[in-house]
Amino acid sequence: MSEPRASDVPPVLTGWRIGVVGLGLMGTPMARRLAAAGAELALWNRSIEKAEALASELRGVSAQPSPRHVAEASDIVIVMVTDADAVREVVFDPVDDQWGVLHGLAEDGIVVDMGTTGLSATQDLAGRLRMGGGNWIDAPVSGGTTAAEDGSLTIMVGASDPDFARVEPVLRVLGKRVTHVGAVGSGQVAKTANQMIVGMTIGAVAEAMALGRRAGVDPGLLREAIMGGFAQSRILELHGERMATGDFRARAKATIQRKDMRAALALAQTAGIALPGLETNAALWEAMVESGFGDLDHSALILAVDPPLED
Amino acid sequence: MSEPRASDVPPVLTGWRIGVVGLGLMGTPMARRLAAAGAELALWNRSIEKAEALASELRGVSAQPSPRHVAEASDIVIVMVTDADAVREVVFDPVDDQWGVLHGLAEDGIVVDMGTTGLSATQDLAGRLRMGGGNWIDAPVSGGTTAAEDGSLTIMVGASDPDFARVEPVLRVLGKRVTHVGAVGSGQVAKTANQMIVGMTIGAVAEAMALGRRAGVDPGLLREAIMGGFAQSRILELHGERMATGDFRARAKATIQRKDMRAALALAQTAGIALPGLETNAALWEAMVESGFGDLDHSALILAVDPPLED
Repeated sequence: MSEPRASDVPPVLTGWRIGVVGLGLMGTPMARRLAAAGAELALWNRSIEKAEALASELRGVSAQPSPRHVAEASDIVIVMVTDADAVREVVFDPVDDQWGVLHGLAEDGIVVDMGTTGLSATQDLAGRLRMGGGNWIDAPVSGGTTAAEDGSLTIMVGASDPDFARVEPVLRVLGKRVTHVGAVGSGQVAKTANQMIVGMTIGAVAEAMALGRRAGVDPGLLREAIMGGFAQSRILELHGERMATGDFRARAKATIQRKDMRAALALAQTAGIALPGLETNAALWEAMVESGFGDLDHSALILAVDPPLED
Repeated sequence: MSEPRASDVPPVLTGWRIGVVGLGLMGTPMARRLAAAGAELALWNRSIEKAEALASELRGVSAQPSPRHVAEASDIVIVMVTDADAVREVVFDPVDDQWGVLHGLAEDGIVVDMGTTGLSATQDLAGRLRMGGGNWIDAPVSGGTTAAEDGSLTIMVGASDPDFARVEPVLRVLGKRVTHVGAVGSGQVAKTANQMIVGMTIGAVAEAMALGRRAGVDPGLLREAIMGGFAQSRILELHGERMATGDFRARAKATIQRKDMRAALALAQTAGIALPGLETNAALWEAMVESGFGDLDHSALILAVDPPLED
C-alpha cells in the first residue's frame, strides 16, 4: 500500500476535525488521504496498534481508546467496518453504554457509514441515531484498495441535502465520483444495484465465453473481437481476461459476490418486485460456492457455467 | 447519412476490384468508403436505383444487373443482405442458374458475408461454395450505420489464414477493430456471443434500475452513481440513459434482439451446453414482445421487468 504524497492532495481539510472508526484495508488508506489533506484526525481500531502506528507517523493524527473518544474529538465520524453488525456495535454499543460513537457525538454530529450495510439495517440505524440527536449518512464505496489509496473511489451517498453539503468536501478527498443519490439509504440501494449488475454481467460474459469455447472459438480472441462494440464493459475487460487465461486468484472472492446477490434478492423481496434474471444469476453463485469454488475470484463463475472435464 | 470525404480515407484500395451485393442501411455507407479508398466497385441491389445513384455519383463505381455480374467484375464479393435466406439466394440462386454470385465467381474467388447469418447456415453455405470452387469468409459487424459511415465498425472474422490475409486491407477500410477470431464460422459465433451479452446486460441494467426505482431511488442518479465502477458498460451508459429518461424510440428494435437471443439459444443447444442466464433472459425478451413492446428500442426491456401502472 503506497502512502499518498502530500503533494497529491491539496490541503482542503485544514481545520476539519474528522474521526475514522475502522482501519482495515479500506479505512487505513482513507485515513492517510484525509491526513494528507490537512484534517485533524481521531482514529480508533479494534486492534489499537494500527491507530497508534498512524498517529506516530502522521501529523495531526491521534489514536483513541474507544469509538466514543473518536466522536468526542470529531465533528464528522466516518465508520468503515465489516458489516451491519459491526456498524451497530461501534455506534450504539449494546454492552457498555459509554463506549460507542453515539455517546460522544456532539448535538447535530454526523456519522458517515461508508460500508456496505444494506438498506434495511441503514434505515434502522439512521432512525436510532436521529432519536439520539445525530445525523446519519450512508456512503458506500466501489473501487477497492487501489482506489482508496489514490482517492478515486466511487462513492454513492444517501443523505439530506444539508448533511450532504456538510460532508461533501471530505468525500471529494476520498472519491473521484461522488454522487448524492437521494435520501438516507439511497447510497445502499445504489451499492446493491451496482453489485447486482456486476454479478449478472459476470454471468453474461461467462456464459458467452463458455458458449464460444464449446463452438470452437478461443475465449481470448472472442473477448478481443467484441471489446469495441455494445458488449463492452469493465467486466468483459477485466474478468473476461481472467476467464480467458484461467487466472482465478481472488481479487474479490466468489463468497462475497454471493453475499451481495443474496442482499439484492432480499431488497427485491422487500421492494415487492420479481427479478427473474437476478434470481437465476444468484442461483448460479450458490451453485458455484457449493461446488467448492467460493475462495476463487468471482470471475471463476465460468467454472460453474462450464465445468472443466474430470480426469 | 454523411458521405465520407475523400481526404478521410487513404487510397489504399487503388486497383482492387470489389463487389458489394446489398445496398441497405449498412451496405450503402460501406460502398461509399470502399469507393473513397480507391476501389473499383461493382454494385448490385434488389432495387437497382440505389446502385445506379451511387454509380452516377462516384468515380470507378458501376451498377450491375445481377449478383452474377457483380462477381464477374470482382475479385472479392461483399454480401450485406437481411438474413441467411437472402444470403443463400443472392449467392446460390436456386431459381435461375445464371443469376447468383456463384455463377460469376472466378476460380478461388472470395465471398465475404458481413451479415448476421448464424453458425449453422454459414457452415452450410461455406461448404457449398467450396464445392463450387470459391472461398467463404464470415465477417459480421457491430456498430450500426454511424460506424459504417466513419469506418469504425467492429468486424468479427471467420476465415482461413490465407483468406483473411487477402481481405484484411478491405476490412480495415470498413472497421476500426477487425479481429480474426478463427476458422470459417467463428465470426458468427463471436457475433452471437456479442448479441447475447448485449441482451443479458440490458436485462441486468433494467432489473437494477427497476429495483432502485421501487426502493425510491431516481434511475438517472442511480446510473450516474455507478457509472465509474465495476458496473460500467456501454449498455449502462447508453441504454441506461434511455431507461432513465423513458426514451424508447427504436435504434435497435426489441424484435431484433429477440431474434438474436433465439439464435443464441439455438447455438447453445447445438453446442450441447445449458446456459441458465441466457434462457431466463431470452424468456424476458419473448414476454416483452408478447406484451406489445416489440417495435420499441431494446432498452424498453425495463417495461417488461417493471410494467408501468395501469390507469
